[in-house]
Amino acid sequence: MIPAEVLYSIADTLEARKSAAPSSSYVASLFNKGEDAILKKVAEEAAETLMASKDGDKLHLVREVADLWFHSMVLLAFHGLRPEDVLAELKRREGISGHDEKASRTAS
Amino acid sequence: MIPAEVLYSIADTLEARKSAAPSSSYVASLFNKGEDAILKKVAEEAAETLMASKDGDKLHLVREVADLWFHSMVLLAFHGLRPEDVLAELKRREGISGHDEKASRTAS
Amino acid sequence: MIPAEVLYSIADTLEARKSAAPSSSYVASLFNKGEDAILKKVAEEAAETLMASKDGDKLHLVREVADLWFHSMVLLAFHGLRPEDVLAELKRREGISGHDEKASRTAS
Amino acid sequence: MIPAEVLYSIADTLEARKSAAPSSSYVASLFNKGEDAILKKVAEEAAETLMASKDGDKLHLVREVADLWFHSMVLLAFHGLRPEDVLAELKRREGISGHDEKASRTAS
Repeated sequence: MIPAEVLYSIADTLEARKSAAPSSSYVASLFNKGEDAILKKVAEEAAETLMASKDGDKLHLVREVADLWFHSMVLLAFHGLRPEDVLAELKRREGISGHDEKASRTAS
Repeated sequence: MIPAEVLYSIADTLEARKSAAPSSSYVASLFNKGEDAILKKVAEEAAETLMASKDGDKLHLVREVADLWFHSMVLLAFHGLRPEDVLAELKRREGISGHDEKASRTAS
Repeated sequence: MIPAEVLYSIADTLEARKSAAPSSSYVASLFNKGEDAILKKVAEEAAETLMASKDGDKLHLVREVADLWFHSMVLLAFHGLRPEDVLAELKRREGISGHDEKASRTAS
Repeated sequence: MIPAEVLYSIADTLEARKSAAPSSSYVASLFNKGEDAILKKVAEEAAETLMASKDGDKLHLVREVADLWFHSMVLLAFHGLRPEDVLAELKRREGISGHDEKASRTAS
């Protein structure tokens, strides 16, 4: 089984990039450009996820969802948040909803 | 530490919902509506992530990213894929890029 | 030729709906829900435009672009703006760029 | 009053660019890259419209909606369609709905 902990090591790397020189890496450059640049990437990857799905190209779809999650984590890091916060929220909902997640979704 | 394995248990639940009666839960209903309905939710949650970020509301942002990841997993399940596929892709990139993820990002 | 002035009559209608009872029409209800509800519709119609294009369904695509432009105008009205402002911007760019619009696009 | 006919002259220009050398202009290059590149721009401009609205920056919002409409017209041209098709659809709805557009919206 692939350890989901890769999300934590990515988050550690992202955190370190926040104080790095913009020219040192893609992520450092993105942090330097600021919130709107990060949000544009989140929107772009969501759009590419839609297109990959419509193309029925599973390999491409996995890459685009990976891009979407990666840039979501850049956004979280920008706000001082971590994937653990998202996973805790998902776990909280699972705990509340049990075998019918419908109730917890109505607050969305 | 929150175990990231909540992603796997959610994927198991989603898989079970694919054959459930549409009226039995939110997810079963979404699977029944089909691909475009799922894609609309992914797009909607991406838009709400942007808005929560612009509002600077961290609690709301965590909820929206959780919604975005959740509906990404519904989309993966629709295509017979699992979060493990996305995590493996993220791990593969981390392995390739080492301390500079820039190289692996250019293929995006 | 269809007179493009339909955009102006729609804008007039939208303006009138801003002060109408929320229950009186779809648009009055949308104005009452506020900015985020309007932005969600803009994002949703953009996503549906993408999906209709990928489906190669021209009739559906025209409907979705109409939805997108309509909700853009609701957003403009929310901010006290009108389609004339957008058309003036498009005309200004055309005047600047002449037969090569590339220059005016670089500021985007 | 700004003549809305600027939409038609833009559509004429877009049509001419479809057969031009990719290097000759921004639009010729975009047509050459194909449907997904155009769709990415539509999604990107929708995202930037959201951000400009949240920033409350009206001048920026007008520019982003102009970008969104412009790239919608590039998409229409890609499919052999014109803004007249969208305006006719908007006019058709206005005719049907009269003083309550709610009915025509339910088909959306």
